[in-house]
Amino acid sequence: MLKKAFENVRRTAPLIHNITNYVTVNDCANILLACGASPIMADDVGEAEEITAICSGLTINIGTLNSRTIPSMFAAGKKSNELGHHVTLDPVGAGASGLRTKTALQLLDEIQFAVIRGNISEVKTLAHGTGTTRGVDADEADRIADENLDGTVALAKRLSKKTNAIVVVTGAIDIVAGKDKAFCIRNGHPMMSSVTGTGCQLSTLITAFVAANGDNPLEAAAAALCAMGLCGEIAYERMGTQDGNAAYRGYLLDAMYNLTPEELERGGKYEVR
Amino acid sequence: MLKKAFENVRRTAPLIHNITNYVTVNDCANILLACGASPIMADDVGEAEEITAICSGLTINIGTLNSRTIPSMFAAGKKSNELGHHVTLDPVGAGASGLRTKTALQLLDEIQFAVIRGNISEVKTLAHGTGTTRGVDADEADRIADENLDGTVALAKRLSKKTNAIVVVTGAIDIVAGKDKAFCIRNGHPMMSSVTGTGCQLSTLITAFVAANGDNPLEAAAAALCAMGLCGEIAYERMGTQDGNAAYRGYLLDAMYNLTPEELERGGKYEVR
Amino acid sequence: MLKKAFENVRRTAPLIHNITNYVTVNDCANILLACGASPIMADDVGEAEEITAICSGLTINIGTLNSRTIPSMFAAGKKSNELGHHVTLDPVGAGASGLRTKTALQLLDEIQFAVIRGNISEVKTLAHGTGTTRGVDADEADRIADENLDGTVALAKRLSKKTNAIVVVTGAIDIVAGKDKAFCIRNGHPMMSSVTGTGCQLSTLITAFVAANGDNPLEAAAAALCAMGLCGEIAYERMGTQDGNAAYRGYLLDAMYNLTPEELERGGKYEVR
Repeated sequence: MLKKAFENVRRTAPLIHNITNYVTVNDCANILLACGASPIMADDVGEAEEITAICSGLTINIGTLNSRTIPSMFAAGKKSNELGHHVTLDPVGAGASGLRTKTALQLLDEIQFAVIRGNISEVKTLAHGTGTTRGVDADEADRIADENLDGTVALAKRLSKKTNAIVVVTGAIDIVAGKDKAFCIRNGHPMMSSVTGTGCQLSTLITAFVAANGDNPLEAAAAALCAMGLCGEIAYERMGTQDGNAAYRGYLLDAMYNLTPEELERGGKYEVR
Repeated sequence: MLKKAFENVRRTAPLIHNITNYVTVNDCANILLACGASPIMADDVGEAEEITAICSGLTINIGTLNSRTIPSMFAAGKKSNELGHHVTLDPVGAGASGLRTKTALQLLDEIQFAVIRGNISEVKTLAHGTGTTRGVDADEADRIADENLDGTVALAKRLSKKTNAIVVVTGAIDIVAGKDKAFCIRNGHPMMSSVTGTGCQLSTLITAFVAANGDNPLEAAAAALCAMGLCGEIAYERMGTQDGNAAYRGYLLDAMYNLTPEELERGGKYEVR
Repeated sequence: MLKKAFENVRRTAPLIHNITNYVTVNDCANILLACGASPIMADDVGEAEEITAICSGLTINIGTLNSRTIPSMFAAGKKSNELGHHVTLDPVGAGASGLRTKTALQLLDEIQFAVIRGNISEVKTLAHGTGTTRGVDADEADRIADENLDGTVALAKRLSKKTNAIVVVTGAIDIVAGKDKAFCIRNGHPMMSSVTGTGCQLSTLITAFVAANGDNPLEAAAAALCAMGLCGEIAYERMGTQDGNAAYRGYLLDAMYNLTPEELERGGKYEVR
């Protein structure tokens, strides 16, 4: 399943529209290129619909949302819905400010997302309509581990049912949940959280995978998670004694560039719950 | 010719004003530093003219153009014209949206550019006033190769005549065209298109070369193309088995940092048509 | 003193709010992660106060200031003052345009900064209310060296007295000045100026150090300077023959990631004047 999903990305090279934050935007563009997709960033309301129309998928990331770009998110999202394109929401920092929480909830209200991808604190905020988030990171209290995995899977499935979107919750164990079925993914490395924007990169990677695998979005999203996590593992193995988070940032992208569908198939570690 | 042009950049360290996109802006700043120039980024209309006035050249890149920055492009461009500074236009994605096409054409109308730098789809859009662009990449149908080189050179020369600017068309073969004379440059490596922003970097590198070689802008622009392409080749030779587009991105900048005028003179591959 | 200050950063992992430029924002986020702190970037006036309220410190960097973000700087700065958080000002390019000079002076007027960090040209502009800056770099005439160190220390102390802030002037020798006491720091490497944004990174690193060491802000700021400079030295030692400013950029961050409080204590080179 993973192999086929990745092959489809490499074969179809989907063009992905990103309305995203300016902190990690360069890495988002480069991971799309690394996986075989193509990026375009455009956030002016005067072109958001037109740009989205020539793309196969859209990633909306609220990391540095602002009064100028929020209307573009709605315009592009609605246009994508009209055209049947897949749209991913990355609700960065939902729960950390009223503006983020309100915007994320309103986006959920007015746009049909194919995928919602956040850490557990962000996802809880969306599920409960309110929340506390420690900046852009998950709350300590919110760590996903084997002890609370069933509960988190249930939460993700409920949110999936409510939003009609695939719900991806990232943490030590990642969850990719549809209404009735969830993948629990055990790829990845803690070092990934020492680089800014690995979550943002993942969100737009998911868009590329889902756009290239329209018939199997849940499996495609799970494949994107496995791919990103596996690259996190490969990147860590490459670390030398003087390497730190900057080297790791590059190794992650390099790993995605060199990853083959076969390696992904072999390296993916997931179970279905 | 290449050696002298590059020496002038290193000797005069021109300060280059960039109104550019937020995707590749960091790489644009670092390539200017790598070649011996200095960057300044400033895009508020309240300071665009003043900042341009203390610089030697201006790069206008419409990659993430928006309602706030478009007026700054016009203000800085006109001021640069008044002061006789060289201005480069990078019409990123012209043809992909009405806003991009219209803004690029209006910029051409109101500002005298020293150089226009785009891929063939973008340049055709400027030449014909309309076009189709696959996002920010050139259309497949538009690849520059030996079979259609003469036609593309003719197109570039015509656009140069019409705009009174040097027209640079990048692709597998790069063209640097004045009204009557064009350089066809065979440096570079396909891997360059796997990194976001190599085109953006090239555009502002051209500004630095032209600003430092005011008497020979056509030769200076050709030298910038050879330098960038040569760095693309050097960077590729440095690639190890685990390296991907992130490593290559760094190697490109490193190659520019270490490139000498003598190496450029020896390594430049161009012909005049 | 250096060891303890750094240990406190690593132990408390302060969350730092950045209203900063889009050129170097990714490196600012990654250096905060590298030193053990956490970044959040948020510049919309609709959330600036709320985001600052959940953080321990705020960095205001005017590198690409604009009409949309300037009000956010004031809102976040005032809120931070109310809450007793430490605020750092990086007056990038003050003196290069009226907008930058005016905004920097007005920020000084309305916000109580804990630290002001600039090159000598920027600091002179703040001290004298007017100035000339070569873009975002210091004027040649303004180099800090042993010959004029006493004068520059005196200037920094005077500005510290006037603003009630720690004044950091960076150059070949760095100065960290309170009203009556100044640290002169001889760590660092000239190669640091070949990478865009090492100054921006330093400014937000200082915020992290000061936020984690509220009782000893002057010593904490000096420790941040020693840490950054020491990383500049370590990064330079790591340079291979093909490495350039891109490699060096990564090595700097990697050095910060791997730096231990003990190494900082041993490697810091400072004197008190």
